[in-house]
Amino acid sequence: MQLKTIIASTSTIYGGKYLEYLKEELSEHFKEIETLLFIPYARPSGMTYDECTETARQFFQSIGIKVKGIHEYGDVKKAIENAQGIFTGGGNTFVLVKTIYEKDLWKVIRKKILSGTPYLGTSAGSNITGQNMKTTNDMPIVEVPSYQTLGIFPFNINPHYLDPKPDLLQHMGETRDIRLKEYLHFNDIPVVALREGSYIHAIDKNWILKGKFPARLYFDLNTIKEIETGTNLYQLFKK
Amino acid sequence: MQLKTIIASTSTIYGGKYLEYLKEELSEHFKEIETLLFIPYARPSGMTYDECTETARQFFQSIGIKVKGIHEYGDVKKAIENAQGIFTGGGNTFVLVKTIYEKDLWKVIRKKILSGTPYLGTSAGSNITGQNMKTTNDMPIVEVPSYQTLGIFPFNINPHYLDPKPDLLQHMGETRDIRLKEYLHFNDIPVVALREGSYIHAIDKNWILKGKFPARLYFDLNTIKEIETGTNLYQLFKK
Repeated sequence: MQLKTIIASTSTIYGGKYLEYLKEELSEHFKEIETLLFIPYARPSGMTYDECTETARQFFQSIGIKVKGIHEYGDVKKAIENAQGIFTGGGNTFVLVKTIYEKDLWKVIRKKILSGTPYLGTSAGSNITGQNMKTTNDMPIVEVPSYQTLGIFPFNINPHYLDPKPDLLQHMGETRDIRLKEYLHFNDIPVVALREGSYIHAIDKNWILKGKFPARLYFDLNTIKEIETGTNLYQLFKK
Repeated sequence: MQLKTIIASTSTIYGGKYLEYLKEELSEHFKEIETLLFIPYARPSGMTYDECTETARQFFQSIGIKVKGIHEYGDVKKAIENAQGIFTGGGNTFVLVKTIYEKDLWKVIRKKILSGTPYLGTSAGSNITGQNMKTTNDMPIVEVPSYQTLGIFPFNINPHYLDPKPDLLQHMGETRDIRLKEYLHFNDIPVVALREGSYIHAIDKNWILKGKFPARLYFDLNTIKEIETGTNLYQLFKK
């Protein structure tokens, strides 16, 4: 297995600009490529593929990389097979997963990522690298044929992890912590919950947690703990 | 069509006790029944059916009504058919919907509600009275065979509606408003979003919005507006 992926909680930190906090990392990550294939299927706020792609294009222009949206190709499978690098952006995970099933792209994306093609996922684009999408925060606005996703990692991702803030708000529904514990009642695949600004930088067997904050590991109901930045998640999950 | 239902955003208002804010309304609603059938399938926080049922039992004791959990019956379809009144509690909507499909109970619950049997739904138990569960706020921790639900009303419910609070928090992910607009990009079934403490009291063709706050109607992307308490939603949706 070869791997060269960045799995980020979010594209945009509060008060920052799109991907700005990852600029240096991404310059390095994609330094050997000229053109990045962008997958806009998650359609944040129902934006069109063109609109989503334009946002990505503007950022990557600033580090000298061209962006092409996958929808600009006639044969989308070929587009993936031939991609120098792939970026799947955020939006609604259900919309993203549904579209990947419709276009039958799981296998080809998976193969591509596991052959070491540089990949970037943010939010929904990170969710799909886990075993399944059961730990997305998104609303199920479309039906999907299955929750199963790429399974690059032996765990699920929960992006945008929020710590409980009991004093700040009177009622925000269940906290994320309560939701992920509910998940563990019904599932035995662990979850790595990434706070905003945190990401996993996975090169082959080094899956290093990076960014501003520790992550939170929901391993099982008896094992829920913080993971410090710099931790190699591959070692943690090695059987 | 006969109807005698209360569709509440939540069981418990912040700072209050379980169902306390509805006590008077529920005494009236269930005044002709002795025993209430409780459906605990949504299992909040992964609680057992017995634990969920005990919470309901304690409250209804205070208004002189016995509670039996549906899981206490051998034949659950019969239990519904014979019920004097039904209460479906909150928890995880995916877990609830999955269980109702497994036990093949949609038809019998629907028939029972539409014959005027007094019904109470809170949160997930309210979600299922809509056309489908696409506007639940819950995490998809289990897979469901379909999102289609009871379809008692011609709209979907979004319980626990929260107004955007841009100043209060740095990042809470998408606001509910953004999520429901995303939903409308992909769907044409309207949504009635109920704030905490609000509920629909539907007697036959009078579906009156009650409680502390106006509701928010997401009719389509061009028609999003507040609905005042006292409004008859039946009139609003009559074609």
